[in-house]
Amino acid sequence: MVERKHDREFVRTFFTSPTAVEGEDDSAKMIRSASGLRGMQAPDVWVPDNEDATAPSMRDEGVDNIVEVVSENGADFPGEIHPRVVWHRNSPTTRYQGFQQMLEISDPENGAIEHIDGFVIPEVGGIDDWKKAEEFITIIENEHGLEEGTIAMSVIIECGQSELAMGDLRNEMGKPTNNLERMFMLVDGEVDYTKDMRAITPTGDLPPWPELRHNTSRGASAAGLIAVDGPYDDIRDVEGYRERMTENQAKGMLGIWALTPGQVVEANKSPLPPEEGGWLLDADGREVELDEEDGVQVYDGDRLSLEESGDGYVLRVGGDEIELDEDELREELLDRTEYVPSMDDIVDSMEEFEAAKEAGRGAIAMEQAATLRVDGVEVDLSKDRMWDEATYQAAMTPVSLFQDVYANRPDQHEDLAEMYSEDIVERAMDVGT
Amino acid sequence: MVERKHDREFVRTFFTSPTAVEGEDDSAKMIRSASGLRGMQAPDVWVPDNEDATAPSMRDEGVDNIVEVVSENGADFPGEIHPRVVWHRNSPTTRYQGFQQMLEISDPENGAIEHIDGFVIPEVGGIDDWKKAEEFITIIENEHGLEEGTIAMSVIIECGQSELAMGDLRNEMGKPTNNLERMFMLVDGEVDYTKDMRAITPTGDLPPWPELRHNTSRGASAAGLIAVDGPYDDIRDVEGYRERMTENQAKGMLGIWALTPGQVVEANKSPLPPEEGGWLLDADGREVELDEEDGVQVYDGDRLSLEESGDGYVLRVGGDEIELDEDELREELLDRTEYVPSMDDIVDSMEEFEAAKEAGRGAIAMEQAATLRVDGVEVDLSKDRMWDEATYQAAMTPVSLFQDVYANRPDQHEDLAEMYSEDIVERAMDVGT
Amino acid sequence: MVERKHDREFVRTFFTSPTAVEGEDDSAKMIRSASGLRGMQAPDVWVPDNEDATAPSMRDEGVDNIVEVVSENGADFPGEIHPRVVWHRNSPTTRYQGFQQMLEISDPENGAIEHIDGFVIPEVGGIDDWKKAEEFITIIENEHGLEEGTIAMSVIIECGQSELAMGDLRNEMGKPTNNLERMFMLVDGEVDYTKDMRAITPTGDLPPWPELRHNTSRGASAAGLIAVDGPYDDIRDVEGYRERMTENQAKGMLGIWALTPGQVVEANKSPLPPEEGGWLLDADGREVELDEEDGVQVYDGDRLSLEESGDGYVLRVGGDEIELDEDELREELLDRTEYVPSMDDIVDSMEEFEAAKEAGRGAIAMEQAATLRVDGVEVDLSKDRMWDEATYQAAMTPVSLFQDVYANRPDQHEDLAEMYSEDIVERAMDVGT
Repeated sequence: MVERKHDREFVRTFFTSPTAVEGEDDSAKMIRSASGLRGMQAPDVWVPDNEDATAPSMRDEGVDNIVEVVSENGADFPGEIHPRVVWHRNSPTTRYQGFQQMLEISDPENGAIEHIDGFVIPEVGGIDDWKKAEEFITIIENEHGLEEGTIAMSVIIECGQSELAMGDLRNEMGKPTNNLERMFMLVDGEVDYTKDMRAITPTGDLPPWPELRHNTSRGASAAGLIAVDGPYDDIRDVEGYRERMTENQAKGMLGIWALTPGQVVEANKSPLPPEEGGWLLDADGREVELDEEDGVQVYDGDRLSLEESGDGYVLRVGGDEIELDEDELREELLDRTEYVPSMDDIVDSMEEFEAAKEAGRGAIAMEQAATLRVDGVEVDLSKDRMWDEATYQAAMTPVSLFQDVYANRPDQHEDLAEMYSEDIVERAMDVGT
Repeated sequence: MVERKHDREFVRTFFTSPTAVEGEDDSAKMIRSASGLRGMQAPDVWVPDNEDATAPSMRDEGVDNIVEVVSENGADFPGEIHPRVVWHRNSPTTRYQGFQQMLEISDPENGAIEHIDGFVIPEVGGIDDWKKAEEFITIIENEHGLEEGTIAMSVIIECGQSELAMGDLRNEMGKPTNNLERMFMLVDGEVDYTKDMRAITPTGDLPPWPELRHNTSRGASAAGLIAVDGPYDDIRDVEGYRERMTENQAKGMLGIWALTPGQVVEANKSPLPPEEGGWLLDADGREVELDEEDGVQVYDGDRLSLEESGDGYVLRVGGDEIELDEDELREELLDRTEYVPSMDDIVDSMEEFEAAKEAGRGAIAMEQAATLRVDGVEVDLSKDRMWDEATYQAAMTPVSLFQDVYANRPDQHEDLAEMYSEDIVERAMDVGT
Repeated sequence: MVERKHDREFVRTFFTSPTAVEGEDDSAKMIRSASGLRGMQAPDVWVPDNEDATAPSMRDEGVDNIVEVVSENGADFPGEIHPRVVWHRNSPTTRYQGFQQMLEISDPENGAIEHIDGFVIPEVGGIDDWKKAEEFITIIENEHGLEEGTIAMSVIIECGQSELAMGDLRNEMGKPTNNLERMFMLVDGEVDYTKDMRAITPTGDLPPWPELRHNTSRGASAAGLIAVDGPYDDIRDVEGYRERMTENQAKGMLGIWALTPGQVVEANKSPLPPEEGGWLLDADGREVELDEEDGVQVYDGDRLSLEESGDGYVLRVGGDEIELDEDELREELLDRTEYVPSMDDIVDSMEEFEAAKEAGRGAIAMEQAATLRVDGVEVDLSKDRMWDEATYQAAMTPVSLFQDVYANRPDQHEDLAEMYSEDIVERAMDVGT
């Protein structure tokens, strides 16, 4: 992996708040309240949003509000703070406004910049446009007597041009004419991206854009940055948000936008290993989580049925009826089941592998056993999985994420200890070190 | 969005016709008949095809036929005219033939060029190969005293090299050594692409190539061009053609090849919003369109069943049985339904949002209500959706397409007025202006 | 297609063996036994693996073992031999070790190099890193008096950087400062790629990475190379391995890693056309292979049912019941069925098309007829498919692969003749020439 130049190696949550709301006694109400978030409700990255979330007419006041709230509350905020300013690849006016907003927010006399980790630049175009924004930040650091390269820069990918630019980034980062090493997050912005790509769906829902998410994750991997997915608008739909995150995680995109503290909680927990392990059953093409009853994994749907018949079994799935003896049944059910390990399981396996490696063994078998019950018929299953160095390394990702969270978010220690127990937390912090 | 340099901002249909057919009294029969198409049967872009659709031995005659038919009928043809000539990245002979064909077709003395909008170059390779074709067009413009840059150039993407070139295009377009600003359409050619990629499917069907289509759409977005999908061979399969177009539209690829006037009609209508709105129901993973009966949305399949039971309801889906009270049932059905807005609905929403914006409000809720009937049980549903500037902008794409069609295709005015009513057409032309 | 500079135009199988195993009397046991493989058990490319498959402490001995076994048995090995050495984009130490390993293995005095076709370089980064490896090979050829450019180089794609590099490769290959024309295979390594991309799945299974595989196949196509997929770990799961290969083939990735001689057999056969043709039926969204009984294609599942009713038919699929007359039923079943041609069918069609072309016809209809039986009701179907030059060219891919195999793998002649009959083999070798 490319060396990462920032404090956080992982960002689970990117939470935006409007910087100035019209018609309130305190126009800074939203960011003031956000600045007080702690624990699982507090994001890894908090984004006072002086762009789309704030009305154009309120953005000057938004700058003042950011300065006021961050200088007051920034020291105690547990996550990083990266305000979003205005920018547009097609508008020099907007770009100059963005520069002015950053210049003002960063002024040391205002007292906010010491708590600000970087800026988020929306609507960037090709790599030359990224350089324009980067150059402004370099100038700002110089004007304000800040150390060059200390303000992080993140961008929102909202058009085809910037999607392509992610492929060029790594080659541009080393050049002596820029400080692109300050790059920190690549964040997808699917609403504007959909507009730029001129996509249409019958219901008006956003397209899933799997290739964009892959390319963002790849761009982050190639340049040592962090990939973050865009907003999930349907706030009521917690299940859908979780599914989106699971999909993203399989692409290497471990962070996601959050629009409410409720979404922050979900997104802070999602990439962490589960508290309890569990079994999945492929029931006629649908993946079903089994319920545990007294140590037995029970399937009680009727997409799949099982009965004893003479000296064998009859398994019915979809339209098909299969006659099996006991070994064949076990084999069939092994093929249809998967185990989802808990944090506890993962730590156990890694410790076991580390011990084996120390003892000179390069590969060991990890076993996972369960009793499965379908229609009253019980079958004992046992799955072996070979672990070698590569398995170990790949399994390390969620543990490294946990370690990064633990090291950087003391405000979440209590929640983590409650989720996993003190003992597991301690052992998880020791793995791989 | 990048500024587009051509008359049309959208191309729904790319219709090819053989330029010379052997064994007919009139070898120009096919293009002569195509040149007479009008209204929904006439494509946005008509492509007299002097490459694959025409036998190699007939291509000299094809050039003469293009000249003859376009000089006669081109003035009255309602779409743009972009003949396809021969070209191959691996054959200088073929490239020189392509140059000669374009030189002849463009000769002002032949009277066709004033009705011709550009040329389509197949089988291009990397960006240097695109430049070779572009340079020939520059030379032709110069030789024939035509204004430099006025002949559009479009390419067919039929290999991995040209797929990659779409990522380089934007950077090459501004260089003073070429006139690549004449680029107009990026068109996928999946049959030859499949050959070039050496892909195999068991049935011999074409692979779906989702990544190619994404990359083409992205390349078009980044360079201000128009993305068009390749031919759909199974002409009988109207449903499949429609599904392909819906898929493409979600990728931002709004145009598609058409092989028959029947396909042209389908493809001209597909990206336009529907005449009637409708409800979709997720019936155990299958999306089903509900039938409207006297204002009620009715599901009468049996993938999902519903009955009253005491003071609640029992919903059966797949193998699962769920007991729900009235509110839970409404919630469950809200999750399972989606509304597909009509042109009428879209225009209403946009007008409403424009009025709200004028009144100083940045976001409003749009409501969609319906009564749903499953197995005789009726439930009233109401869906709210928040509209802000971004929602409005994204919803604008189909309306912009409609406006582009209306402005450029007077021959379709009657059909559009019949589909949508005069009133809706008029209001749709006013939205967003 | 880009001209390929190597003996093999296709590689079906990439089989790795540990070069030195600890605790055995003969540490070379695994590669000694692999070097004896013949026929369908012998891979197209054999990879004595001095990297991940071999413990770090055993790699010096691994070099000696490669030299010993290849100099002894290499002459008789029927596939190509491409040892994998160590390499890492982030470690100059590892890169220098890789250089030393190649230098030693290639020493003509050791007698192995005359049987070695190239080297496999793992863990490469951006294109500059590929050039470092390439330069070492150039130096080795020079030091050992071997002809420049004769040792092939293949890379394993295991990170985002190298995935991006595949897009640059073609432009770098022609430069006078390198010999990248020696590039042969692009091989995906999904375990380390998953680690580099920091992806997480609930079960710990590898993500499917469809975009990576597309990009590898495209990179191979653009540069005239061969695309190979990574290891399929679950050796028991033959069905899953086959499905993966079918998916890969639709992406143009015709080769795959094999971990056991059993996987080699499967992977050698998979891209070859089947011995017997067969019919597929879409039974409520599930594709089912029909059983042939006395020349009739029989469906006996119950996802789909059919009965006669008065003068028509009732077809039940999923929850839906459709009443059809005889013609409509035939139409419906035509839509739901597809034919998978055998090698025999393919050769017939190609010969027929070649004859038609010689007779001056550019397109002909190929017919495929069958009787289908569902629930005792029999229906005669006949499918027409138009073949033109493009269809013919695309259908040529599996035949070209067969021809490449036949020309390069005499040890498989007997197996191929047994699979297809001598007659079909002979005719397949004549097609397209």
